[in-house]
Amino acid sequence: MSEKYVIGVDYGTLSGRGVLVRCSDGKVLAAKAEEYRHGVMDRFLPDGTTALPDAWALQYPADYLEVLEHVIPELLRESRIAKTEIVGMGFDFTSCTMLPIDEDAVPLSEKEEFRDHRNAYAKLWKHHGAQRHADIVNRVLEESGMAGEARFGGRISSEVLIPKIMEILEEDPQVYEAADELLEAGDWVTRVLTGSHRRSCSMAGYKAWWDPKKGYLESSVMKKLAPGLEHVSAEKMPGEICAIGEAVGRLSEVWAEKLGLQEGMVIAPTIIDSHAGVPGGCLSNDRQAMMVLGTSSVVLALSRKPFSEKGVCGGVRDAIVPGYYALESGLACVGDLFGWFVDRFVPADYAKQAETRGISVHELLSEKAEMLQPGESGVMALDWWNGNKTPYVDGGLTGELIGMTLNTKPEEIYRALIEATAFGTRQIMELYEQGGVALEEIIASGGIAMKNPMLMQIYADVLGKTIRLAASDQAAALGSAIYASLSAGVYDSYWDAVQNMSAVQEKTYVPNPENTETYQKLYEIYCDLGELMGEAESRGRTLLAKLRSMKR
Amino acid sequence: MSEKYVIGVDYGTLSGRGVLVRCSDGKVLAAKAEEYRHGVMDRFLPDGTTALPDAWALQYPADYLEVLEHVIPELLRESRIAKTEIVGMGFDFTSCTMLPIDEDAVPLSEKEEFRDHRNAYAKLWKHHGAQRHADIVNRVLEESGMAGEARFGGRISSEVLIPKIMEILEEDPQVYEAADELLEAGDWVTRVLTGSHRRSCSMAGYKAWWDPKKGYLESSVMKKLAPGLEHVSAEKMPGEICAIGEAVGRLSEVWAEKLGLQEGMVIAPTIIDSHAGVPGGCLSNDRQAMMVLGTSSVVLALSRKPFSEKGVCGGVRDAIVPGYYALESGLACVGDLFGWFVDRFVPADYAKQAETRGISVHELLSEKAEMLQPGESGVMALDWWNGNKTPYVDGGLTGELIGMTLNTKPEEIYRALIEATAFGTRQIMELYEQGGVALEEIIASGGIAMKNPMLMQIYADVLGKTIRLAASDQAAALGSAIYASLSAGVYDSYWDAVQNMSAVQEKTYVPNPENTETYQKLYEIYCDLGELMGEAESRGRTLLAKLRSMKR
Repeated sequence: MSEKYVIGVDYGTLSGRGVLVRCSDGKVLAAKAEEYRHGVMDRFLPDGTTALPDAWALQYPADYLEVLEHVIPELLRESRIAKTEIVGMGFDFTSCTMLPIDEDAVPLSEKEEFRDHRNAYAKLWKHHGAQRHADIVNRVLEESGMAGEARFGGRISSEVLIPKIMEILEEDPQVYEAADELLEAGDWVTRVLTGSHRRSCSMAGYKAWWDPKKGYLESSVMKKLAPGLEHVSAEKMPGEICAIGEAVGRLSEVWAEKLGLQEGMVIAPTIIDSHAGVPGGCLSNDRQAMMVLGTSSVVLALSRKPFSEKGVCGGVRDAIVPGYYALESGLACVGDLFGWFVDRFVPADYAKQAETRGISVHELLSEKAEMLQPGESGVMALDWWNGNKTPYVDGGLTGELIGMTLNTKPEEIYRALIEATAFGTRQIMELYEQGGVALEEIIASGGIAMKNPMLMQIYADVLGKTIRLAASDQAAALGSAIYASLSAGVYDSYWDAVQNMSAVQEKTYVPNPENTETYQKLYEIYCDLGELMGEAESRGRTLLAKLRSMKR
Repeated sequence: MSEKYVIGVDYGTLSGRGVLVRCSDGKVLAAKAEEYRHGVMDRFLPDGTTALPDAWALQYPADYLEVLEHVIPELLRESRIAKTEIVGMGFDFTSCTMLPIDEDAVPLSEKEEFRDHRNAYAKLWKHHGAQRHADIVNRVLEESGMAGEARFGGRISSEVLIPKIMEILEEDPQVYEAADELLEAGDWVTRVLTGSHRRSCSMAGYKAWWDPKKGYLESSVMKKLAPGLEHVSAEKMPGEICAIGEAVGRLSEVWAEKLGLQEGMVIAPTIIDSHAGVPGGCLSNDRQAMMVLGTSSVVLALSRKPFSEKGVCGGVRDAIVPGYYALESGLACVGDLFGWFVDRFVPADYAKQAETRGISVHELLSEKAEMLQPGESGVMALDWWNGNKTPYVDGGLTGELIGMTLNTKPEEIYRALIEATAFGTRQIMELYEQGGVALEEIIASGGIAMKNPMLMQIYADVLGKTIRLAASDQAAALGSAIYASLSAGVYDSYWDAVQNMSAVQEKTYVPNPENTETYQKLYEIYCDLGELMGEAESRGRTLLAKLRSMKR
């Protein structure tokens, strides 16, 4: 067969990155990234004068298309691949990043009359302006007895779609009224390229509570969330839901022209960025879990049955791998936690030692921490500095450190923080096993996984599983390309596509049995401490809540 | 009346300090300190080659007398006071610091045949070699149903007299056998100067479980502690017990000669060093408590009835103020805790800021911490880095920090540590009130009290009481002088002596009502957290114990 090629585009928080990939073996022939012209707007609108409230984070939708217009021609030029050989294009996007558009798919923020309306812009995933609205949703779900439903994953956050829409409706009814559609930026990109209203089940399922059997949240409940919201799905969220492997539509003449691609080329549905790392990171059977370690972490695995409990979202089928429910959870801080400690609590003499030796403070601390045995320090942490997703589903929970003496050293606390994130990850993995995953092995990707072998060994020891590292350092973009190859019919099966196009590194982290035994005991203590401080209605949680209520 | 003078000598851990004081107004006419020639021996015997086990801390008894021989003549020279005008001398000493002596009061460590016997030396208060023996004592007391008796204060530590004696008996029966007396170094000094065997009720009551009604621990119980120990009090602890205000005896001709003092001068019984700070710090009525803030803290108050509970020792009458039971407890680390944080967890940029401004890191942190409101940070600590004396009486308990987020700053933790020590102090004060003290006001002394106004204000706010600072910066030595004036009959009443000879500073710390109200709420959370982690049999304490048992 003649070679076929696909393009994958990864839309991150600050930039978009495209790769052009050979379908037969996954070889990346060209890669190109470009930052968004307006970046993240968290202080002013583009006019530079209209100030934004705290917790707001907006983007300028045209930036996403501009990335395409610059990056795609560059990929073609660099790879020297003819457009006729490129059979499909796929995307992953931060989510929920949403915007209001008119009937011609033009973002309202680009229309003269809405330029100074902050609710007309794209609200980035980490826009936290809608916390109040999320609180209302949780209260209503609680009161309606629906809080337990799989699609809500226990408790909803302010980052998902409906709270962001509620905020528009309340703050700026004019924008709400004028919006022909309210949609994920990821869906908007495919809408623009194809004219199709079809939306991806990835974001619909995880961020808009879409259920394959029930559809979106019913109108009577929407009404309880906010008067006027009852018709939102019927009126502002059109388009059938499109599974992974299907196509949203075909590339329009106009955009084929603009990008230098072939008209009619298959456009795949956009997937949530961390999920694209699953094929891109080479999750190649259903006994593996994928762990993306960055500032926070995402942990994903596949089950034949739906499972949503204690902060694990697993109610959506076909969203990552056809035929499977993808179970998702993660830790609300990982790299951020280590960074907090290194930036604020490492003494001058350590900083100096690191400088003298020409290594980073992280490296120095890792070296010192590596000399310690599990349990040696007597120090333990609960890794809740940014709240807890699983198992307590409470963004307001806080970090704890116990077991300190006058001899406790910085590297002992550093190691305790690392261990705590490993214990927290194990709690997630154990829930996945309850949820039907026969977990044998873990694939890790993300900057921290690549950079810190000491941490990876601790994770292997704590989890008691072998860990492999993803081979690609652009796993999300590669994953989007793999999905494009599925949508374009190059491969019939996800597993075939992954096995051919993706890979893991040779290096593995194998659990040390002795350490695993010690960590088993420490893990039990961690779980116990977690229950003490996190279990609903417990004295510990009550006391943490009191403390929090007194903060200014 | 013609002026009369007294001398007070404060024997600390590293040095002895003498003051010569005018009885009419407490004016210190001369002061002189001298370090012990051999300091603290925690690695080798004086031969420099015989190594000591971990946790050992010895002293060389002759050093104590050498201090006297150098310091006293210096005081006389500097003050130009004639020896005929000096009517008494009193001492305070670290305790329990004990040694074995022969029938001529010669320390066994000075006898050729015992030079290389480590058990022949003075065991300093912080010698922790006898932990195993203390554990035996606690088990036996528990089994005999005696653990609740006032004189044991809940649970005994390895620092008191009997465990140290048990260690001698077990490790070196030859030394035990050869010892004519086993006694506190404080009692040994008065024994040498006077020839009298009388011992001070201060150390007998607090460190040797002497009870005015029952005497020392009965022989049948001693036997359970160790076979061979049954006659220890009858055979090795002679001498009647001497109350504060009485005299041990009179200065011998030999020592009058050596020191340049008058033969027959009154020698007062030695008092525990921290207790001497009570008159020296000007505790002038029974509605005051005395708080000595140093590396750790001592908190003392007076009650008309005995009270020993939850780590509060208050079974000894007449030991500090005639007619009163002195209630004693304290925190196992205060300055040490702040030092731990400043030395190990303050980032380079803070150290640099402090350096640039020419202030200490403590001062910089205090400045930043002072800007915070109570409760603002959401961070709370349990100050148990060195265990907890009151209310949980467990030296193995460890420090905890809760409520951290990714925004938590060093000064927030620093302030939380200070607040925790204030909350811990309040728990002690509340027990004292239960024990019959009508507490109105607090006197503070010690380096930290003098140096850190921010901390003192937090203490005033947390305790809800006015705090006054002791005027003297050598409160213990002054206190010993005041006791000498009582023993010499210059004053008939403790209160008269204190009111004339001691003083407080004008500066007071008055509680800010708004802060006191906020701290009331935070204190309740602290107590709750303490119960959660410290209450016997609680899940928290159990998990801390498990964690500890895994330490290496």
